[in-house]
Amino acid sequence: MADIGTERVSFQADPSRYRHWRLAFDGPVATLIMDVAEDGGLRDGYELKMNSYDLGVDIELYDAVQRLRFEHPEVRTVVITSGKDKVFSAGANIRMLAASEHGWKVNFCKFTNETRNGIEDASARSGQTYIAAVNGTASGGGYELALACEYIMLIDDRSAAVSLPELPLLGVLPGTGGLTRITDKRHVRRDLADYFATRPEGLGGAKAVSWRLVDEAAPRSTWDQLIAARAAEFAARSSRPADAAGIELTPLDKKRTDNAVTYPHLEARLDAAAGVAEITIEGPGQDPPADAAGIQAQGAGFWPLAITRELDDLILDLRTNEPELGTWILRTHGDPSRVLAYDRLLLDHRDDWLVNEIIQYLKRTLKRLDVTSRSLIALIEPGSCFAGSLFELALAADRSYQLDGVFEDEDPEADPATVALGGMNFGPLPMGNEVSRLHIRFAGDEESVAKVTERTGAPLLAAEAAELGLVTFAPDDIDWAEEVRIAVEERASFSPDALTGMEANYRFAGPETMETKIFGRLTAWQNWIFNRPNAAGPEGALRRYGTGQRASFDRDRV
Amino acid sequence: MADIGTERVSFQADPSRYRHWRLAFDGPVATLIMDVAEDGGLRDGYELKMNSYDLGVDIELYDAVQRLRFEHPEVRTVVITSGKDKVFSAGANIRMLAASEHGWKVNFCKFTNETRNGIEDASARSGQTYIAAVNGTASGGGYELALACEYIMLIDDRSAAVSLPELPLLGVLPGTGGLTRITDKRHVRRDLADYFATRPEGLGGAKAVSWRLVDEAAPRSTWDQLIAARAAEFAARSSRPADAAGIELTPLDKKRTDNAVTYPHLEARLDAAAGVAEITIEGPGQDPPADAAGIQAQGAGFWPLAITRELDDLILDLRTNEPELGTWILRTHGDPSRVLAYDRLLLDHRDDWLVNEIIQYLKRTLKRLDVTSRSLIALIEPGSCFAGSLFELALAADRSYQLDGVFEDEDPEADPATVALGGMNFGPLPMGNEVSRLHIRFAGDEESVAKVTERTGAPLLAAEAAELGLVTFAPDDIDWAEEVRIAVEERASFSPDALTGMEANYRFAGPETMETKIFGRLTAWQNWIFNRPNAAGPEGALRRYGTGQRASFDRDRV
Repeated sequence: MADIGTERVSFQADPSRYRHWRLAFDGPVATLIMDVAEDGGLRDGYELKMNSYDLGVDIELYDAVQRLRFEHPEVRTVVITSGKDKVFSAGANIRMLAASEHGWKVNFCKFTNETRNGIEDASARSGQTYIAAVNGTASGGGYELALACEYIMLIDDRSAAVSLPELPLLGVLPGTGGLTRITDKRHVRRDLADYFATRPEGLGGAKAVSWRLVDEAAPRSTWDQLIAARAAEFAARSSRPADAAGIELTPLDKKRTDNAVTYPHLEARLDAAAGVAEITIEGPGQDPPADAAGIQAQGAGFWPLAITRELDDLILDLRTNEPELGTWILRTHGDPSRVLAYDRLLLDHRDDWLVNEIIQYLKRTLKRLDVTSRSLIALIEPGSCFAGSLFELALAADRSYQLDGVFEDEDPEADPATVALGGMNFGPLPMGNEVSRLHIRFAGDEESVAKVTERTGAPLLAAEAAELGLVTFAPDDIDWAEEVRIAVEERASFSPDALTGMEANYRFAGPETMETKIFGRLTAWQNWIFNRPNAAGPEGALRRYGTGQRASFDRDRV
Repeated sequence: MADIGTERVSFQADPSRYRHWRLAFDGPVATLIMDVAEDGGLRDGYELKMNSYDLGVDIELYDAVQRLRFEHPEVRTVVITSGKDKVFSAGANIRMLAASEHGWKVNFCKFTNETRNGIEDASARSGQTYIAAVNGTASGGGYELALACEYIMLIDDRSAAVSLPELPLLGVLPGTGGLTRITDKRHVRRDLADYFATRPEGLGGAKAVSWRLVDEAAPRSTWDQLIAARAAEFAARSSRPADAAGIELTPLDKKRTDNAVTYPHLEARLDAAAGVAEITIEGPGQDPPADAAGIQAQGAGFWPLAITRELDDLILDLRTNEPELGTWILRTHGDPSRVLAYDRLLLDHRDDWLVNEIIQYLKRTLKRLDVTSRSLIALIEPGSCFAGSLFELALAADRSYQLDGVFEDEDPEADPATVALGGMNFGPLPMGNEVSRLHIRFAGDEESVAKVTERTGAPLLAAEAAELGLVTFAPDDIDWAEEVRIAVEERASFSPDALTGMEANYRFAGPETMETKIFGRLTAWQNWIFNRPNAAGPEGALRRYGTGQRASFDRDRV
């Protein structure tokens, strides 16, 4: 939108300040009630009628999903329903979309997609299964929210329906995975899916069930009872612990200025002139606790959780508020052996519910990097700790540079930079394609993977790391400054759009999953459509919606 | 380009009329020499310097690839090389791209991609392996042509290099699969691939080999000898027959007016006002020959080959020359049992080289439908022959309608419409994702697949076909006209771009392959970039290239 950038968006939320959602708890079942405040839009110029949403509504949803996992080990089923009468959710707010700049729309869809993937991750990996209790009409993004749940119940009252009306009404695609989930997750036949997505009023009742659009339709008379029964069934199958205590996700200690974002373990310096954010992650300041109880005792202060939360917030902040910073430079600082020690602690206790949550959260945060439309360059210097889980940052980067030797002028006595692999690099933190970054890096070259596997745990100097293919370049002190400067300046000189396209392709070499199809094929098509006059032009469908005027289309098929 | 549409593009070519390619034969080795005529552009306004190409150059290449398969069973290795000094190919012509309308660029890339996929198909399925003998610099699409070959040889003369300079020089992506093949086919590490694609001058010699960009680099002194040796090695491994005679791909008997395209077995009526092409395919007029020798004797007149060639040409004609016809209605007419008889003949003799070529060609032609950006609606009426291989048309369609009963006013005594499955529906004609359309239709629902499999060969009336999920709708005579009319009119009222995006997603439910990634993720991003001001705007990189002025970018990352 025109005024994006005048006010920074904050991604920090707290249930006590929610304007759009309510959380209710009943033993193993939590109910997440969507009740959007019409006047609670993040920006001016639109009203959030009929449980339609904007980024602000989704920031609260994301917060709720995170807190349910960490603060509520007792919750085994989450029921998402609406607090409105006759409407579940009308989806993303159309006036907000119509008034938004292209980049805002794309970033908004990316975040909402990540949140919906997070819902699926909770169902799949945390024993916290989501049920959509669709107690009124669910349109577009409203139905897509339901599609992210494992089980969809639809009230059968002759008016409630699910629909994807984006194509006929707005000339765009359902933007949060609908077209992919409907076939690849729910196995709706593609010709029926075609008909469904051209029918603005959608489908309800028995037909919605027989077409697999929902799992169950039930009349109002048995509605509450049936939801309770289904919630109990899913809860009974859960692996969540019986008597664990949650840990509180305490407010982040964050300082934000125009030039820097600072957290206890993480700092980003923002250089608008160069188009660069220089990000430094601080390794653990102390040795890890001895066991899972020690982790629990440290709670949100436990280093892996603390750094993940900070990195998560920073990624979201920079993506939304600093679109002109096209290159992120990633550095680490600390003791690599300590990072590996924390990794081992996590891996040794990965069956613990909290440890599992921490690993899954780190996984999701690293996945955010993979789909971030910024060039990522890792700089591996003396004093850094690119080991194990933190080496994933270098693997996520488009390029990495490891100094061969030391900076003679700065600290000739320093230990040279090393990198190290650990168990975290071989599977527990997969990309969206379910493959480790290390395997994707070597693109099916099992011989190279075998060679690096042999060196797991060893500190690798630049020459060896480059030889093994773990870093891109290994310049020495003489060449370092010039080579890095050229790489960064060159990046800033290229077309930002072409970089986004190139990186989105290279980062996802190899196999595809539903998730990568959503961020790849579907998102790329949607971005194209968002950018076309038939949608976003003055006579386009998105801009004309609700004006009483029909869109005027260029009829040529491209 | 501005004047596209003033003159229709023809996709029919013949070696005797090639302006840009030469074919030379030496026993089992054919050499395909690219020697583009600078003044031979399909349109005015650009010169095809340095073996750069436009659609016209690629139409000849496609023709050569097809003829090598059908007319030259003796050819086991095809060497693609350049007839120019010091340059292999500069890729797609930049001035042509810069002057072209968005739709023209997208359609051009689609066709060039299909031709390159066809080259890989020949290597994989016909025992006709392609070697790129890169005897000079191969840039952008020039290198991508080499990437489509199984083996890439690069002359090592200190000037020859391979490169993908699109991003740094033009602000777009390599448009014909380069970013996908470099990682997924050649297993170049993605960080090296990143560096490579930002370096306009590319890489040559030993470095190009060690980065896997090419397979072999050789000096001029041993060049010809080495190519001959490699060509002989690949030829020795081929399954092509020793003493078969080719069949001639005789000129198509085609009539083309503004309102119709007519071939012996295929007709399309073009309705510009409705935005519809009504396509009718005629089934076989006689019973199939008895054996492979009979097929060989009929040559290009053999019905399956004849109809495939006509359909192939029609798809290319309509895609390029009739972009405003957004809906293609697919009908068939003939005897379904005869279609199944031809299918059985082909399947019984699929080890025969010619039969294999016919099946693979039909497969490629149906794949063209899958990536065609037009809504496809199959109408299954009395007298139709949607059986076996022709039922693939209904499976490729976004929707199908089968009449329940007969048209009472038209022909009350007619046999009701049926559809029938045959062996061709269960694997020999896969989509680009290597899965049959039938399996993709049921999206992993093996129970439904098992049910339809039981009914293989049986003529299925509308009610049963709908029940089995083989057709979308089965209206009766009373509803038919209205239901079909609404579907077609509605389609014409929707945003053409949104339809393209929706269809591209639904048609490729399920798994992905390198080929579907090229047409999905990569193409969708490229189309987005092509449509952005940073590339195609008056100050964009594509438009500014060669003017001496630098592009001016909106620096925001999207």
